[in-house]
Amino acid sequence: MEKSQAKEKLSSLVEATRKKAPIPFSPRDAERALSALLATDDLWEAVRLSHAPMRFLCAFWEQMIADGLLSATDGKLRFTDAGRSFVSALEIAPAREVVCDACEGRGVDFRKLFGESVERFFAICQNRPEAIQDYDQGYVTEATTLARIAFAWQRGDLEGKEIIVLGDDDLMSVAAALTGAPKRVLAIDIDERLVNFINEVAERESLASLKAVKHDLREPLPDDWLGAFDTFLCDPTESFVGFKAFVERGLLCLKGVGSAGYFGLTHVESSLDKWSRIQRFLLESGAVITDLRDDFSGYVNWGYIEEMRSWDWLPTKVVPKKVWYCSALFRIELLQKPKVENRRLEGDIFEDEEAATT
Amino acid sequence: MEKSQAKEKLSSLVEATRKKAPIPFSPRDAERALSALLATDDLWEAVRLSHAPMRFLCAFWEQMIADGLLSATDGKLRFTDAGRSFVSALEIAPAREVVCDACEGRGVDFRKLFGESVERFFAICQNRPEAIQDYDQGYVTEATTLARIAFAWQRGDLEGKEIIVLGDDDLMSVAAALTGAPKRVLAIDIDERLVNFINEVAERESLASLKAVKHDLREPLPDDWLGAFDTFLCDPTESFVGFKAFVERGLLCLKGVGSAGYFGLTHVESSLDKWSRIQRFLLESGAVITDLRDDFSGYVNWGYIEEMRSWDWLPTKVVPKKVWYCSALFRIELLQKPKVENRRLEGDIFEDEEAATT
Repeated sequence: MEKSQAKEKLSSLVEATRKKAPIPFSPRDAERALSALLATDDLWEAVRLSHAPMRFLCAFWEQMIADGLLSATDGKLRFTDAGRSFVSALEIAPAREVVCDACEGRGVDFRKLFGESVERFFAICQNRPEAIQDYDQGYVTEATTLARIAFAWQRGDLEGKEIIVLGDDDLMSVAAALTGAPKRVLAIDIDERLVNFINEVAERESLASLKAVKHDLREPLPDDWLGAFDTFLCDPTESFVGFKAFVERGLLCLKGVGSAGYFGLTHVESSLDKWSRIQRFLLESGAVITDLRDDFSGYVNWGYIEEMRSWDWLPTKVVPKKVWYCSALFRIELLQKPKVENRRLEGDIFEDEEAATT
Repeated sequence: MEKSQAKEKLSSLVEATRKKAPIPFSPRDAERALSALLATDDLWEAVRLSHAPMRFLCAFWEQMIADGLLSATDGKLRFTDAGRSFVSALEIAPAREVVCDACEGRGVDFRKLFGESVERFFAICQNRPEAIQDYDQGYVTEATTLARIAFAWQRGDLEGKEIIVLGDDDLMSVAAALTGAPKRVLAIDIDERLVNFINEVAERESLASLKAVKHDLREPLPDDWLGAFDTFLCDPTESFVGFKAFVERGLLCLKGVGSAGYFGLTHVESSLDKWSRIQRFLLESGAVITDLRDDFSGYVNWGYIEEMRSWDWLPTKVVPKKVWYCSALFRIELLQKPKVENRRLEGDIFEDEEAATT
């Protein structure tokens, strides 16, 4: 195939995909998807390496299959001969990774903070409540949680500080309290199982700074949490409305200028267009982005994968065996009092065209 | 000292500092500065750990010295008894680091890309031109340059791509070409020594993709560079005007949606307020921030340190022995055609209240 011909083919492929997937994406996302397929034939590994929304990926793959460029069986995605000649004409390179093996690319050695508490945290996590779909749960690996807390320690957001965790299936509050560094750690969650688990851990492990409280984040925050914390941590659901709900609540909890917030954001459920809208929202709220480490967080595969929205979109259905759902870690710091209201949120905060796991 | 008393003292310290240093900073910057002084008594190490503008730091230290809280001799900054009681009453924790030793916190193992070329790059760098103040030069460690290029490779911005490096005392063009991955690497620099050096390396090492051209970035770009590259790399001077000059030139060189840019930004010469203005500018230009890894780049100490602007501000003057000047690595990706003009830049692009090294 000639290069010009292949480029035309790519354009029509992107156009056809645009009709199937009503979300923003760019030809660069298509390039990333093709690069990933040159590096792996495993569907879930291809999602991870593509760094593009699942909704787009599935539509793109479907169109490639319809066009005879790709085959899908037993969880494998493989170029056909026509597909191979197509990507080779486009001169697309395979996806590459140069991740540091020692820290899994996070840049953080959490053992420097946690020492022997690493094993204590792992032991505590053995009996954690399983992730359930009702609350869009799905928790990160223990190493991720420990690295997040170590990172916050390094940034001066942990030691001697008052910390709130908004939604804590990742058990960040437990890891934070285990360090003994924070003055106070409050976890809030809608899920009674988690609230009870964290409070039981606090008692059993004598973590006096740690407490969990049941609260539905769609409801306004009680007054005594407003402006009461130095640091918030959360891992929001990624509909734009749901994301804002989490982060706005976090901002409301902060004491003011110089306070910091942490949250995750994926490519699986958020286009770069949504990333830019979120970044604009953060800046307009009076925050500055001080850190953005992509693929910092890896998620343990959850039990409800066959019930999630994107399962139906898959061209071939197998359950993932390795970590495939990752997120970037953002840190923001307040430069001015945030312009946010403590209002009730109506409607379905999980609904969004780019959502994949709800 | 009582906590309330210490807080009042801190407020008046910050107020007095504000009169000396006409740049934006927050009480959190003061906290970071105090945290750093609890972790080290070495002046340069304190700058590195403070993550705050040099201009602010020097004014803050000066005021602390005037208030009898700090002593400065032989390059050491030490709390007096009054100073120790002050920070202890404030319950400030020492600055902490949990950096992964294997990758120096970058999260990148550049040997996975470069293999034996690592030594080749080190050998080439042995004869590089020294950094000079005329062009606000100051190059990064070899490991930094290699890690930046490996990172760009991982993001798909190197292999088969056309790359422009705007100002290349870091020799990023050489490292990029050494991988053999890019289709084309063009380095532009105002400094003839660098242009000649890079072109000599290209010839001696048979790097056919590599070329350097002399150009003053204050002048409009020649037409044949406009919209001609997939990736730009630069390490801008940090006055807001100078920074915009570099990055706008970079944006103008990009082919369009999906193209990417890399640049560095420090805390030494840029307040978080300037960071937020820069982030707003990037979003308004049609880009999204996809990565922001702080302290990714470490700079080799340059020869003109005693002539730099901030030398006069230092409360005690010694030449630094270790890396102290660091910068964050930003990656941006275009979501739309950038809204930027190819205009001539007038005046001093290095001048800025927050500048420290010019």
